[in-house]
Parts: sequence; structure tokens; C-alpha cells
Amino acid sequence: MRNFFYPGSVAVFGVSDTPSNMARIIIENLERFGFGGKVYPVGKGKGAVGGSRIIPTIDEADSVPDLAVQLIPAVRIPETLEQCGRKGIRHVILESGGFSELSDSKKTLEEEIRQISAKWDMKVIGPNCFGVINLEARLVLPFFIFDPGYMRTGGISLISQSGGILYDTCMIASCENLGLNKLVSIGNKLLLDENECLEYLISDPGTSVIGLYLEDFSDGRRLIEIASSTDKPIVLLKANRSPTGREIARFHTAALAGDDRVAEAALREAGVHQVESLAQMIDAFKIFSLPLAKGPRLAVITRSGGHGVLSADGVHRHGFELAPLSENFFSAVKEKKINVIRTTNPVDVGDIYDLASYSEIMDRALAEEAADGVLYVVTYSSESDGLKVRNFIGNASEQVARYGKPAALCLACNRDQWPIIRKAVDFPIFGDVDYALRALAESRDHFAFADKKSRAHARLTGSSTKALRARQPRKAAGPSRILGSPEAFSLLEAYGLSVLPSGVAKDLDGARLLAAKMGYPVAMKIESPSILHKSEKNGVVLDITDEAALGHAWTGIGGERCLIQKMASSGTEVIIGGKRDQEFGHVVLFGLGGIFVEILRDAAIRLVPVDPETAMEMVNSIQGAPILKGARGRPRADITALTTALSGVSRLLIDHPEIRNLDINPLIVHEDGKWATAVDVKIEVDR
Amino acid sequence: MRNFFYPGSVAVFGVSDTPSNMARIIIENLERFGFGGKVYPVGKGKGAVGGSRIIPTIDEADSVPDLAVQLIPAVRIPETLEQCGRKGIRHVILESGGFSELSDSKKTLEEEIRQISAKWDMKVIGPNCFGVINLEARLVLPFFIFDPGYMRTGGISLISQSGGILYDTCMIASCENLGLNKLVSIGNKLLLDENECLEYLISDPGTSVIGLYLEDFSDGRRLIEIASSTDKPIVLLKANRSPTGREIARFHTAALAGDDRVAEAALREAGVHQVESLAQMIDAFKIFSLPLAKGPRLAVITRSGGHGVLSADGVHRHGFELAPLSENFFSAVKEKKINVIRTTNPVDVGDIYDLASYSEIMDRALAEEAADGVLYVVTYSSESDGLKVRNFIGNASEQVARYGKPAALCLACNRDQWPIIRKAVDFPIFGDVDYALRALAESRDHFAFADKKSRAHARLTGSSTKALRARQPRKAAGPSRILGSPEAFSLLEAYGLSVLPSGVAKDLDGARLLAAKMGYPVAMKIESPSILHKSEKNGVVLDITDEAALGHAWTGIGGERCLIQKMASSGTEVIIGGKRDQEFGHVVLFGLGGIFVEILRDAAIRLVPVDPETAMEMVNSIQGAPILKGARGRPRADITALTTALSGVSRLLIDHPEIRNLDINPLIVHEDGKWATAVDVKIEVDR
Repeated sequence: MRNFFYPGSVAVFGVSDTPSNMARIIIENLERFGFGGKVYPVGKGKGAVGGSRIIPTIDEADSVPDLAVQLIPAVRIPETLEQCGRKGIRHVILESGGFSELSDSKKTLEEEIRQISAKWDMKVIGPNCFGVINLEARLVLPFFIFDPGYMRTGGISLISQSGGILYDTCMIASCENLGLNKLVSIGNKLLLDENECLEYLISDPGTSVIGLYLEDFSDGRRLIEIASSTDKPIVLLKANRSPTGREIARFHTAALAGDDRVAEAALREAGVHQVESLAQMIDAFKIFSLPLAKGPRLAVITRSGGHGVLSADGVHRHGFELAPLSENFFSAVKEKKINVIRTTNPVDVGDIYDLASYSEIMDRALAEEAADGVLYVVTYSSESDGLKVRNFIGNASEQVARYGKPAALCLACNRDQWPIIRKAVDFPIFGDVDYALRALAESRDHFAFADKKSRAHARLTGSSTKALRARQPRKAAGPSRILGSPEAFSLLEAYGLSVLPSGVAKDLDGARLLAAKMGYPVAMKIESPSILHKSEKNGVVLDITDEAALGHAWTGIGGERCLIQKMASSGTEVIIGGKRDQEFGHVVLFGLGGIFVEILRDAAIRLVPVDPETAMEMVNSIQGAPILKGARGRPRADITALTTALSGVSRLLIDHPEIRNLDINPLIVHEDGKWATAVDVKIEVDR
Repeated sequence: MRNFFYPGSVAVFGVSDTPSNMARIIIENLERFGFGGKVYPVGKGKGAVGGSRIIPTIDEADSVPDLAVQLIPAVRIPETLEQCGRKGIRHVILESGGFSELSDSKKTLEEEIRQISAKWDMKVIGPNCFGVINLEARLVLPFFIFDPGYMRTGGISLISQSGGILYDTCMIASCENLGLNKLVSIGNKLLLDENECLEYLISDPGTSVIGLYLEDFSDGRRLIEIASSTDKPIVLLKANRSPTGREIARFHTAALAGDDRVAEAALREAGVHQVESLAQMIDAFKIFSLPLAKGPRLAVITRSGGHGVLSADGVHRHGFELAPLSENFFSAVKEKKINVIRTTNPVDVGDIYDLASYSEIMDRALAEEAADGVLYVVTYSSESDGLKVRNFIGNASEQVARYGKPAALCLACNRDQWPIIRKAVDFPIFGDVDYALRALAESRDHFAFADKKSRAHARLTGSSTKALRARQPRKAAGPSRILGSPEAFSLLEAYGLSVLPSGVAKDLDGARLLAAKMGYPVAMKIESPSILHKSEKNGVVLDITDEAALGHAWTGIGGERCLIQKMASSGTEVIIGGKRDQEFGHVVLFGLGGIFVEILRDAAIRLVPVDPETAMEMVNSIQGAPILKGARGRPRADITALTTALSGVSRLLIDHPEIRNLDINPLIVHEDGKWATAVDVKIEVDR
């Protein structure tokens, strides 16, 4: 991957000497930024672009370029790609559009590119992308004009499935004076995808925070495994999240783990910071440019009481606390004030008219032992204040580094000051207290979550899991079938779940025999793979207390094959589910039965394997958890039985990659010490 | 109120000729902005400030100023206020701080000011405020430097309890080139409060949208009545919302209608747009500078596929739909494109390199019948594009006005272009698609809610309600008592609620007599005003089926006074509550019983009076509503009985202003046609 970001030489295909030529812009960008390596413009026309002569084919290059960038009509790519291979080029960026994003008929073209790349063992980014920017190497390969005047090198890197979003990020970073490092537009992800790029950026010393803009996951499970391996913050803006008009799911689990709920759960496990907007991603970049907040206690300093009150609200809303500040701190502040207002946090410095004191107050706030970070809210108008504010902000970089704590700085000023301050300082500035605190919360959570993330990483990448991934068909393909009840129940039993005595009766005599053997009361449930929601079809009769009632039930159901099952004793109904997600592989789902899942959709989802510890987290994470723990005078449920069942289902899924869907609904969790019983189960497998 | 905003002449107290003098800044602001009226600087020192001679006392003014602004030490205010009164001044702004915001001992000073104001029938804003800005009258009274160079006159007005927030709003409006009209800082609200200011701005022709920053409600109920009377959008940023460490509520209703949940419910009824941050208020100002969105269908136009996908997500997230666009529209767009991508909404105009076409596309999008508004996402970098983008945005004001539809414009550009574009155009620009759509949703909701708001206004200001307000003591004062069960139940009966036969027994014989009279099964409940949660004290025995069981229960409870009550028949348990809120007066609360209120806090709250239609809205608004309507195979509950009970409780509260808290928990709602029964009730009244 390194040659994509640090090539010694670059060939640019598609250059001509006409002014409207777009590949020229790439050459000009390289020149403007002062790229140090050799550049080969390849294309039609004579003469030179920048300092380099245009050559008609890559054969005429006087050495083998480390990287080729192609911006030529799509149909010509196979030919030039073959030429690149022959020349010995092993890294190619295809910026040209005109592939499967336009029409499916271009799939053949993509297949051709795939074959040529394989033949020459070439790594290919794109097609339909903006290429790569690496400010560290002064490498700027997009075919849009960029200018070093407004771009600053820093630790922020970005992987984007959209060129437009990459471009926007550069523009907004310019307005916010954020330091960028490496940006890569992955386009149609024909060969290289986000996971290879992510692995590279995780290992890249110049990158300290990674942004991801994705419209789909090439391999979600792999992304989770990679993302959970690093301490670097990963901020994900995932598009394409609107629920699609989906068929009504035949499985509760499939319905509850639909849309992007699996992705959300998986990303949370990996400690990925999922944001809802580009603005929120930019705010995350700002906060992750500073030291992490190692706890929830903040010193809040504002220039007006109103800002103090608003900040205190935000502190609470985003799960922070107001740090108790020391006597020392307050006496230092008082020395500078005209009126002493109150010695409370938030600290009102509205009466300190000389802004030159602000740096000292910042220093003292960061030095406070009780404070894990500082929120500093400043407004100003005049030019003379502007200079003092610039000094204040200019000092902040060194201060936060010295104390190893973040300072979120909110600043309002008039529009003449706005660009001046942003050009002058390279410290992040927030436009709003609420946005600043939302970002600061990501910083705090990132620090707090580190241990949990590494445990999740260990769990998800353990050797048995790897074996599982290797043989697991993740995309549903071909027809499927529903297991019969006896088969499904014995599968559950094999993985340690308790099931009720049951058997399938073909006729009433068989039913009578079974019922007599297991003892009344029993339940009768129609047994047909085509009827999934039995209760909705009047296919279930419960509490059959004697033989007469059994006969009555048999007639009522219509005399089809039935499952005769011992009635379960009482307890709390829960649902345990499994699903093979197309992006993330097998997941386990857990929720309380009835209204909790059906109306409130209150469920926990985890990637397999789910060990008992993870199962316990799932139980604790649902809204209805108090129900299981004995709320409202109920007996406490047997939570050990429940977590054992969850991890059993996880092992079952791992051993049976052919399972597409699984519903245990309900599992009745009896009171503590009395275990749990699976009452009904449905399993769908690849045929 | 008009003299505060359009004074013919202004006296400014506290001026001196020393450079650090702050009242001078007021005079200088008036000069810089070209205030046309006469200005009287009052204070120490000789000479003049600006063009006006400083006079030592107001007595020396050659006419009676319409308005006096005082920025002098707090202790001197009574004296100068008295002078103002004698001179004939009837409008005064006290900008000085040093009152109750500093210490409670200053309450005497405030009381003095109150008396002098009453004596002279003076209207007073403040103290501890930034005063008033009215750009229409070129009146700028804060003691901070403002400059007409970055302030534009428009339709946005603001009432702020914090001077800092008012100042911030001006600075951010400057950066966003938003047009301001009247801004008033109300400070400590000693005499005039937000409600008078709001009434004035509603009647003010120059004001088209009103912002409110509040830290408390002076009279919340009155605010709701005023706010629901106007079509002008009111955007509220309410601070001081962090839950306070409150005592454990003895009433479920008080707990559920605690913190700011009453305020939230009331503001929603009045159609007030409550925001969480100043940034969100600014976004609301932007969108309300444009015509309202009269429906949910949007035409979305972007320069890249990525922005299209992100926008489509946002469209869904904020409750919009993608409008189906006409063939005509697409063929017009296709004419301008190099590649035709897809004829879908979002429309990708990334291949239109000549930005000069954008105005035409905007026009055609606004003209689409199926579209209620446009979201237009633009990114650009170069100076030449900048000019075209400025033209494009410059045209937009006229276009949105002509079509009477909003166009939310999102723009990213580099930092050199940022200030240029904002100075050049007076059309609002959003920094992010998600924020733009969030604001657009407020516009859509504002239009859609208009009818509901006027119905709420009629309901809340009906004649009986006014009578109620006049005599209702809203602040809890003095001791209270809990009504005995018989008294409480007959109160409910008097307002049309069904209760169970019951009676209080002092001894077992009495209990036997009562039970025999009403018939077994009965319930026995300890009757003691000091025990509020009876079931937690083992004070309740249910399902007593015969005399023996009754005796057993009597012993178990401990032989105290008990309520003997007929057992209720089955149904859905709900809670109906009442509370006298200190800011909003009496409210009615409704929720489903059990976990729904206790764990999920799922409840609806409305100000009295609650008529049956409003009661039906309450029922429909809770998450658990499907339970009442027959979800999960339950019978449908008697919703008419429920709404009748809710409006009955509302009448009860209106007739009994002495009620502080009321819990009916549970009310059992039987199946449809079988009415509802109040099983338990607690009422707390002023003693």
C-alpha cells in the first residue's frame, strides 16, 4: 500500500495539452504542492505539462513509475492497464468514471480489469474515484484544483467512498484550519476496499485519527476486527442508512436486527465513533486533535452567566460533571476581576476585561487535579481583542500537550475576525458549546472504552472465530428450508439449552400416547414448515389438561401433524435469536418478549462469539433489564441460565454456518435457580 | 413598550469623559449607527461625548427624553430613578449589574426600585442587562462596541435573559449575514419580563421570527397563551434544564412530570420551536428567513453522488420524502450535462461544470409541482467558481419568494472564499446537510402545526380558563394534607369517574359488614395519610374471597383503619395524574401503568383544560398506545371511558385550585363498552 501514498515517481494517464484537459490538473496540483518525485504525463499531444514532456505511451518512460494514475475513457482502461503491467507498475489508481455506477452492462469491463490486475499482481484503487492525497509527501492526485495556501499538514486521515465528500472534507478542514495527512477516495472498490486502507492508516505513523465515509461495508466483520485492533480513534460517517422497503420478515430476529441495527451494534463493539453528519465528523476530528479526556470532570470557563448556564446544561446532557475547583484556582481568578461574582464552576470571567489573562486562567484550569478537561467559551468583537484572543489560542496547543488534557474552545466573533483567527491559529475552534461537548464526549468515551474494545478484539479474533470466518458463507444464496421441531429442539439441547419434552404426532392416537407419556397439561402446536407464526393461524392450543380436551384441540387444529409439548412452568418470556447478516456474519440477538421487542424494539445484538461475559452485557443493556432483576415485586429471574443459553446459541451458530435465521421465542427464564426453558424454536438453513 | 424600541430621544446615565468609561460606548454606538434622535449624556466630567455635552443631572435636559439608560453603580440607581420619574421619563433600561445575581442582600435595593417605578408608573427593563438594539431605528444601547459594517437589518428579533447570548447572536448573525431587527436583553426581569416583550414583538411589523433565550419562565402559562396566538415562528433556547437533585417524589405524577417535562409538553402545544443550542437557534433563524415548507416533499440537488446518498438519509431521518420530479425537469438538466447519470431524486449535477446553470436548475426545481422545497448542496474551490456561486445564491432570494417555497442551501468552500461569499449575499447558507434538514423540518412542522396551535390557543384562553388563572395559586406555599380515601373517591365520582364500592372500617366487624354489603371478593388497603405507597408497606391485601380470609388479612395488616373495596374486574391499568406546576399551573398526565411509566417513563402531559379531543391526542401520543388498541391479541380497551376520565380530572383540577398533586393509579380501563374504574387515588391539597 505504501506506494499509493509515498511513490517515488508517478505516471499520469490521460494528459493532453488542451486547456480543458482534466488530467493536467493532477500534474499542476503535484507542481503547486511541490511533489519531489519524477512525474510522467502520458497522453495525446506534444509539448510539456509543467516541467515534464508528454509521452504517448508508458513504454517510453525512462524508469518504472511506482504509481500510475489513469483518467482516461473507461473503455480504454484494459489496454493501458495491460501496458502498465508489462512495464512493471504494480500500483494503479483508476480515477475514470463510467463503470458499474452508470450501468450494470459495464460489469464486463470491471471483470476485465479484475483479470488484468490479477495477472500482473497489481494493486488497484478505484475506479470512479478522486485518488489519493498525502500532504506529508506533497502528493495531490485528485483532478480538482487544490492549493497549498489553505491546506495544513496534521494527523487527520480519511478513507472516502465518495470523491465529493473527500473534497468537502478538505474545504471544511481549510475553513477550520484542521491538519490533514492522508486522504484516499476508494470509489467503486473494485479491488482495494476500505479494509486494506484502514489497515494501512492504522500502521501509518503520520495518522493519528481516521475518518471513514462509507456507503456500504465490503466486509463488515473484517472492518470490526481491524477497527477494534487500534487505539487510534476511527470516526465513521455511514450513508445509505434509510430503511429500505423490505419484505415482512418471517423471523422476529431478522426484523429486529434489520436495517442498520446490526452495523450499529457491531461498530459500537469496535469502539468506532459513528456520526450522523459531516459536521459531526469534523467536530470529532477537532477533538481528536487534542489529548483525550481521561474522565468526565470538566472545568467550564465562560465570559457570561448565560454561557455558563447553557454550558452546565450541556455538561449534564453529554454525561459530564462539573469539576470541583480548588481555592487556589479561585483566588488566582479573583485577583484579575473587577467584581467577584461567584466562586463556582462554571467560572464566569465576564468581568475580566483584559483578555491577556485568559492564558493564565487556562493554564490554572488545566492544572486542576479534579479536572479531566476544560471547556472555554469566548466571545469578542474588536480588533484589539482579536490579537489577545489569537495569543490566547496560540498558547493553548502547548498547554494541552503539557497537561495531557483537552481544552474545547468555543468562539464567537464578528465576520471580519472569523477568517483572521482561523488563519492565525492551528488549534481547533468549536462554533457551539453543545457541539463542543458532544465531541468532548466522544473523546471521553474513547478513553473509557479502550479496555472493552481490546476485550472485544480478542473475543472476535480468537482462533476459533478465525476458523469460523474462513468457512462461513455470508451471503444468502439459493433456496432455504425450515428445520422440523424435533430436529431444531435437539440442536438446542446439544448446545446446553433446556427444552420441554415433546414429540410429533401424526394422528390423535399418537398425540394421546405422547401426552400420556409426558403427563398433562400439554400444548398442541401445528407442525408445518410453511406455517411460521403458528399462533396467528390458530395453530396453537395451550393448557390441554386431559384426553378429552386433547381430542377437542386436535379437531380444532384440523387434524394435521402436530407437536405435542409439555406445558412450561412460569417465568419471564425472552427472545433469543440468531441471524447471518450479509455484511457482518452471524449475530446473536436478545430481548424481552412481548411488548418489549414487538412495540419497543428493545433488543441487544452482538457478533459471534458471545461468551458469558458478553451475554451478561447484552442482558444489562436492554431497557427492560430491571424486569429480569426483580422490578415491581417479581422474583429475580435465573440470569445465569439466560447467559448460558445466549452463549450456547452463539456456539451453535459458529458450528453451523448454514444457519440463516434462528428464533427461540419464547425462552422462559424461570426464577433464580430454576433455569430456563426453550418453548418454541424456528431455524432456517441453506438447503 | 414602543418607547424602548423607537425613542425620539435617549438619556444615557453614567457617562464620563475618561476613556475607560463604559457608558460612553453606548453614546458611540448610537453615533456609529446614525441614531437620528437627541442623545443626552448624563454624568460626571465636563465637555462632550460625541456631539453632545455631558450634563450632571437629568434636570438639565432641555426636553423630556423618551428613554433613559442607566449604567451607574447599583446603589445610586434609586436616586437617579427618582430623578427620571420627576423629570417625566416613563421608560428606563437599567444596564447596571450588582443586584440579586450577586447576593440576596441586594433584594432590598430591588424592592426600592420596584416602589419608585410604581410611584412614577415607569416601565423598567433590567437590571443587569445589555439593553436594547433596534436596527430599524439605528438604536444600539449595549455597552459593548458594535459596528454597522457587519450588522444587517432583517426580520429576526431576540429576547434574551443573558447579555452574553444576545452578543453572541449578533456575532454569529454577522458571520452568517443574517438580518436582525430588535434585540432586547431582559436581565434580572425585575419588572418587565419576556412575556411583555414577546407580546410587543408579535405585534411588531418589522419582526418576522422571534428568538427567546430564557433561564426561567416568569409565567410559563402566560407564555404559552401568548406564543400560541401568533403565526410568527418562536424559537426558544431554554437553559437551566439539568435535572436538580430533587427529593423523591411522593406522587408518581410529580415524578413523571418533573424537571422540564411539563415545559416541554406545554411548549409543544404552543408550537414553540425548542432548540438545544445556540447553533440550532441560528439554523432556525436561517430557515425562517425563507418561505415555509408547506409539505414534506423535497427536490434534492447535489454535486456528488456521496452528497446525494447522505442527503437521502437525512431526508428520511427528518421525516421528509423525495419528491417525484417531472420528465420536463430531467430533460432540462440533461441538456446541461456531460454524462447523463441517473434521472432520480436526489439529482446529481456533478457533471455540470459550468456553475452558471445552477440558477436555472434551482428555478426548475422550485417550479416542480411535486416539490414543497429544495435542498441544494454545493461545494467549490476556485475564485472563478466563486463568482458564479455568488450569482447563483444572489438569485435565490427572488426565486424562493416567487415560488413561495424554501430552498435550503448547503455550501462548502475553502477559507478564502468563506468570508467573501458571506459578505456578498444575504441568503442563508447552511454548513451541513443534516443541520439544514433539521431546520427545514422545523419549517415544515411550523406550517403543518398552525391549525393545531390555534385550537390549543382557543382551548387554553377560553373564558373558563381565564377565570381559573385569576384565582389559581401557582406556587406551592405552606403545609399540605392528603385527602382521605372516601373524600378523594367522591371527588372523582363528582367529575364522572367510576369508582368501586368501598368504605373505611375501623375494626374487623366493620370490615365484615362492608364486605358482606358489597359482596366478595374484596380488597383491604391500609388507610393512613402518612402511608402513600401502600403496597410497599404490605398495606394491601387483594382477592379476599370470604370472611375467614378477611380476618386473616386484618391481622396481617396490623388491625389499623382500612379501606374495604370491591375487587375490580380486569382491564388495562393506566395512570391519570394531576400536578400544579410552579411555572405552568395545573397539568393533566396520562400513562400506561406498570413498566410503561415506571421504567420507560412513557407519559403524556397537557395543560388544563383537557377536553375529550385533547385527551384522545394524549392517548395516541404515548409509545404504549397499541396496547390500548388491541395489540397482541388483547381486546380493545374502552378509550371513550379513558378520555372522559381525563377531561373529568381536568375539570376537577380547574374547580379545585388548591390541589397540588393527584394520582389515580391505577385506573382500570375495561374492554370496549365496559367503561373504566378508578381503583386507587391520592390527592394532596393546600391545607
